[in-house]
Amino acid sequence: MHQNSGKERSRLLIREFEGGRHLLATLEHGAEIIGQITRVIRENDIRAGHLNVIGALDQAEIGYYDQVSHSYQGIQINEPVELASCSGNISLLAGRPYAHVHAVLSGMKGKVWAGHLTSGRIFAAELYVQELVGPDLIRSKDSITGLNLWREE
Amino acid sequence: MHQNSGKERSRLLIREFEGGRHLLATLEHGAEIIGQITRVIRENDIRAGHLNVIGALDQAEIGYYDQVSHSYQGIQINEPVELASCSGNISLLAGRPYAHVHAVLSGMKGKVWAGHLTSGRIFAAELYVQELVGPDLIRSKDSITGLNLWREE
Amino acid sequence: MHQNSGKERSRLLIREFEGGRHLLATLEHGAEIIGQITRVIRENDIRAGHLNVIGALDQAEIGYYDQVSHSYQGIQINEPVELASCSGNISLLAGRPYAHVHAVLSGMKGKVWAGHLTSGRIFAAELYVQELVGPDLIRSKDSITGLNLWREE
Repeated sequence: MHQNSGKERSRLLIREFEGGRHLLATLEHGAEIIGQITRVIRENDIRAGHLNVIGALDQAEIGYYDQVSHSYQGIQINEPVELASCSGNISLLAGRPYAHVHAVLSGMKGKVWAGHLTSGRIFAAELYVQELVGPDLIRSKDSITGLNLWREE
Repeated sequence: MHQNSGKERSRLLIREFEGGRHLLATLEHGAEIIGQITRVIRENDIRAGHLNVIGALDQAEIGYYDQVSHSYQGIQINEPVELASCSGNISLLAGRPYAHVHAVLSGMKGKVWAGHLTSGRIFAAELYVQELVGPDLIRSKDSITGLNLWREE
Repeated sequence: MHQNSGKERSRLLIREFEGGRHLLATLEHGAEIIGQITRVIRENDIRAGHLNVIGALDQAEIGYYDQVSHSYQGIQINEPVELASCSGNISLLAGRPYAHVHAVLSGMKGKVWAGHLTSGRIFAAELYVQELVGPDLIRSKDSITGLNLWREE
């Protein structure tokens, strides 16, 4: 409908939802956390939502997005960590429910890591999901940032 | 109704709300984050609520409140950071919707900053707002802390 | 009903709830934060829920769970800190509402601590509680992790 020459600047886009189901779940010891969250939201067909997790992992990978090169730099953490903060949202990517999750992790000696949570092995993790019911919120490639963002269709 | 001589100790104050609208929004690349959040809540007349953001900023300022001098110390961050955690609430200040927002930020080399989010330039940011419907929750100056807190009217 | 030889691996357990009351509260200056949160949820009979807090403490204790020895290592913080992130859930332990709370704290010189929030003295703290209405979610000892987790009854 609208044509742009050159790069399109991502604009403010707001979608309104009604509250749906609420889930509290304890995830499986030893499983991979992003895989478990994805399983919970797909098996329950949660197409939009907000999520929060607290718990602990025994190893993890945090991603930091390089805003210039448009690539993720992974930081591998090979020690047990507390999941001191972990929150994110649920929307659709390639037609399926997808969880975008950020976290703050802390190790025994007081070290703290934070960023995009790429993966982690669960020691114990308690997940809260607020389902949102409304329009499809779809991720697609944004040329300015290189990220899959919510866009006008 | 009640008079106090000297400083009044802030007391436990609880207000009950019903859930209202839920918003998911992608904020505008290059815009200032607190200004964008404020725009979203004012344009949608969200007078009370809870909020959460994940994303990344390309510069930011974090405030640390000096509990003795009652002034904010700003920490300026002049590098791209992940918005690893960002949450807050919405209530009324000077008659208008106001967002009080705290955040945890992480840089490429693993450095982590955290505190009151004063400002930040958005690289990409996804906002979740839970509107709360109920009594007006109004901030006013608290003499003990020097902060604008919710008080008995 | 089911018998296991040896250790039982904690499994994925999901419970569904409806949204109940929402509370916003300012907690009492000088009080202990976990005690205050517990008072709010017990006096309001909130048996399941999600919570979030922002604010500041003037001292705190963070716990890090040793996944091998199954004991908490406490880190005592004897300086004012921002409650940069603080979230958790509410369920039942020993028959009463219990809040499980993790936090990220930041000090004036930029130091950041994170983990299980054991205790803290409130300078100012704003609590959000989303009550969840549904099945009883009960914590009991998990032999694999040594933690009180939600289990199949």
